[in-house]
Amino acid sequence: MSDTAAAQSYARSRRGATLDRLHRLLEYPTVSAEPRHAKDMNACAASLARTLGHIGLRDVRICPGRVAPVVTASWQGRREGPTVLVYGHYDVQPVEPKNAWTTEPFRPTRRGQYLYARGASDDKGQLMAHLAAIEAWLTTSGKLPVNLRLILDGEEEIGSPTLLEAVARRWPPLFADVAVVSDTWMLAPDAPVLISGLRGVLGARLEMTGPARDLHAGAFGGAVANPAEALAGLVASLHDKTGRVSISGFYENVRPLREKERLRLGRTGPSDRAMLAPAGVMNSYGEPGFSAFERAVRRPAVVVADLQTSGEGRTVVPARAGADLNIRLVDGQEPENVIRLLRRHLHSRIPPGVRGKLVIRSRCPAYKLREDTAALRAARSACRSVYGREPVLLPSGGSIPFVSALAASCPIEVLLLGFGLRDDAIHAPNERLYLPNLYRGTKVCIELYEQLGGVPIA
Amino acid sequence: MSDTAAAQSYARSRRGATLDRLHRLLEYPTVSAEPRHAKDMNACAASLARTLGHIGLRDVRICPGRVAPVVTASWQGRREGPTVLVYGHYDVQPVEPKNAWTTEPFRPTRRGQYLYARGASDDKGQLMAHLAAIEAWLTTSGKLPVNLRLILDGEEEIGSPTLLEAVARRWPPLFADVAVVSDTWMLAPDAPVLISGLRGVLGARLEMTGPARDLHAGAFGGAVANPAEALAGLVASLHDKTGRVSISGFYENVRPLREKERLRLGRTGPSDRAMLAPAGVMNSYGEPGFSAFERAVRRPAVVVADLQTSGEGRTVVPARAGADLNIRLVDGQEPENVIRLLRRHLHSRIPPGVRGKLVIRSRCPAYKLREDTAALRAARSACRSVYGREPVLLPSGGSIPFVSALAASCPIEVLLLGFGLRDDAIHAPNERLYLPNLYRGTKVCIELYEQLGGVPIA
Repeated sequence: MSDTAAAQSYARSRRGATLDRLHRLLEYPTVSAEPRHAKDMNACAASLARTLGHIGLRDVRICPGRVAPVVTASWQGRREGPTVLVYGHYDVQPVEPKNAWTTEPFRPTRRGQYLYARGASDDKGQLMAHLAAIEAWLTTSGKLPVNLRLILDGEEEIGSPTLLEAVARRWPPLFADVAVVSDTWMLAPDAPVLISGLRGVLGARLEMTGPARDLHAGAFGGAVANPAEALAGLVASLHDKTGRVSISGFYENVRPLREKERLRLGRTGPSDRAMLAPAGVMNSYGEPGFSAFERAVRRPAVVVADLQTSGEGRTVVPARAGADLNIRLVDGQEPENVIRLLRRHLHSRIPPGVRGKLVIRSRCPAYKLREDTAALRAARSACRSVYGREPVLLPSGGSIPFVSALAASCPIEVLLLGFGLRDDAIHAPNERLYLPNLYRGTKVCIELYEQLGGVPIA
Repeated sequence: MSDTAAAQSYARSRRGATLDRLHRLLEYPTVSAEPRHAKDMNACAASLARTLGHIGLRDVRICPGRVAPVVTASWQGRREGPTVLVYGHYDVQPVEPKNAWTTEPFRPTRRGQYLYARGASDDKGQLMAHLAAIEAWLTTSGKLPVNLRLILDGEEEIGSPTLLEAVARRWPPLFADVAVVSDTWMLAPDAPVLISGLRGVLGARLEMTGPARDLHAGAFGGAVANPAEALAGLVASLHDKTGRVSISGFYENVRPLREKERLRLGRTGPSDRAMLAPAGVMNSYGEPGFSAFERAVRRPAVVVADLQTSGEGRTVVPARAGADLNIRLVDGQEPENVIRLLRRHLHSRIPPGVRGKLVIRSRCPAYKLREDTAALRAARSACRSVYGREPVLLPSGGSIPFVSALAASCPIEVLLLGFGLRDDAIHAPNERLYLPNLYRGTKVCIELYEQLGGVPIA
């Protein structure tokens, strides 16, 4: 039996234990955006650190971040071999609206082939495939085919504000030859996807303030400027009637979609129907002249993610109103430039009687994979051996701030090979993981580490 | 010592006990808009019923309402005298944003001459003046100068949906000669106001729905219609750039503001500065051509009281977004007609890819006092004797649904004589009552009952 076959056989025999471990990991309510979960973040990090030691990794560390620690570990055994950076994140999105969940978000529940819990797919379930693969290699062979550096981020969902610095301090100067990230999706359980690009993201909050306090809607309504009404006007000004972004200059530096790329996206990407039906959407809507998939992966967008006021259901003229803007950027768009354009757009439109403030919470540029590299060939080969087919190269509309930052800071190859499905309901109620993807994902990781062992050192 | 003087003297000696009773009343979190407080509503009603029996009223009843009971009681002693209906409400507005409160909203706290608590001014503190006056009369003389019917509403803040029916069942057919309501404001502690009109109100909720669930903002942003963006567009369409309501026909039947009335409002009503400074507002904003006070009391308004989405802080394309609209109506505007105009306005503006729904939660027309009646003369006389001056007749921008309903159903006179101040922060954090107003309000009520004893029977 080859080393790989032994690792595969071991992983298969440990599926129950891996699933138990995932259950326990999902029980931590690791919502990085909510300060009240600081204790849970620390407890989860401590538990992960114990797991990493247990599966045989060394030099396990818990490094403080802005709101949650990053857990790192390594395995250094091949003096001549390449170093692979594996990245995952254990923080999750908030669970609201909580009453839309069929079962408790932090009490993982199995129904059929699915495991339901916040973080089941994004990203605890996917990072677990790597931990299972590492354990299989280290238990059966006592070594890994590559030198490995593992990063488990606790701040991905809030833009990983300090991670790159922390990692650069931990492993200077150039800290890996290849990075592997499993935090993306497949077209189907047997149709792997290697992500060829990610959109960048600008997380911004527009805050309007008016009266010093909430005012009785009867006593003051109609006589004072209302920040909720002003906010609605500003938010409405961000798009024209067709759904195109109205911010002057927004599309200026966007790399155009060439006919060849368009044909490829049309052939390999999902149809409007395939993409939208699971989301309960009949027709795509947005910038005219593009398919739903093109809009989502190759065109920028200004998404109004939330609106709130200080009124909170009372009959008042609210003192404050706010909008969460989530701006997705594509190749060619500089975050700083888009912030400047947005500020200019808003500034000229603030009505009298209210004050406006734009707070930038996170920013990262788009990411684009270099094609035809040794790392990419290794990923293709791993997929061939597990799925019997090569991965489709497709861009994703999502963003992974650390990947963009990593790619911008050094010439590292980043393999984005994920095990989620597009109907996993990530960021939404009833998030789930298709369990066969966890097991097959583990298999791919075992094979991928083996294949990456042959990648030349940078 | 006259009967009135004895009652006044007794009330003065009982100030401490009255304040204790108010403290206990304020401790019940009687938020009628929040179903989780159903038990508190019942407990508060039961406690009030005990108090009413204790102060000497008879025929105390707790009648179930839609979400909270109404407590009624009466005193029937003057076969030839007029019947006075006294109305107050024990339900309160929600306390959000809770962290803006200096002290707990349901733990009444005294600071200087003020008592801070939700409901301190609106309306528990004001109704307490009536209970103290009733107690003083019944204890000292064993009778009241009028036949009294008392209504303590538990659903005022949600529009008193069933109260009129309940009361009509309780006391058919015409149930009083005069009504007295203390749920309004004074210009200053020594400047009483008799409200000459109330605005009507339409409580409506605009709900937009899009995708079947919240969608990841990266995976779908830019490719699907966003209900939050659609909502912002619709909300923004309700006003033009000057702050005037843009709903076609909205101002059509509004009774115009004549020069004479305008002069009177200018002379007796607050200046822009006096009205807005306590609210932390520099300049009035709204329909052009009117002062702040005119806008608030004599012109209709569409107030956006709150905005929400199902996103609640996550980075998603939200599945749902909603706006609470609080529309204030004036003399001449029919609620049903305004609903029709609003529906037509919204219907023609809903963008593709989302669905819109308008839910009407409450409605009542404006109310206008008939001037120069015996009841009005009684109120003037009571104010002269307590404050040394007559009350100023002023319209209010607020709405009391039961008053509008009452006035529409029978030719009863309604005296709106309140003890709140315009900076009591009602409906807002840190609501308070100026305690001298409670004591002087009690004095006015004692005197007013006496004066109303001479009003002819309808």
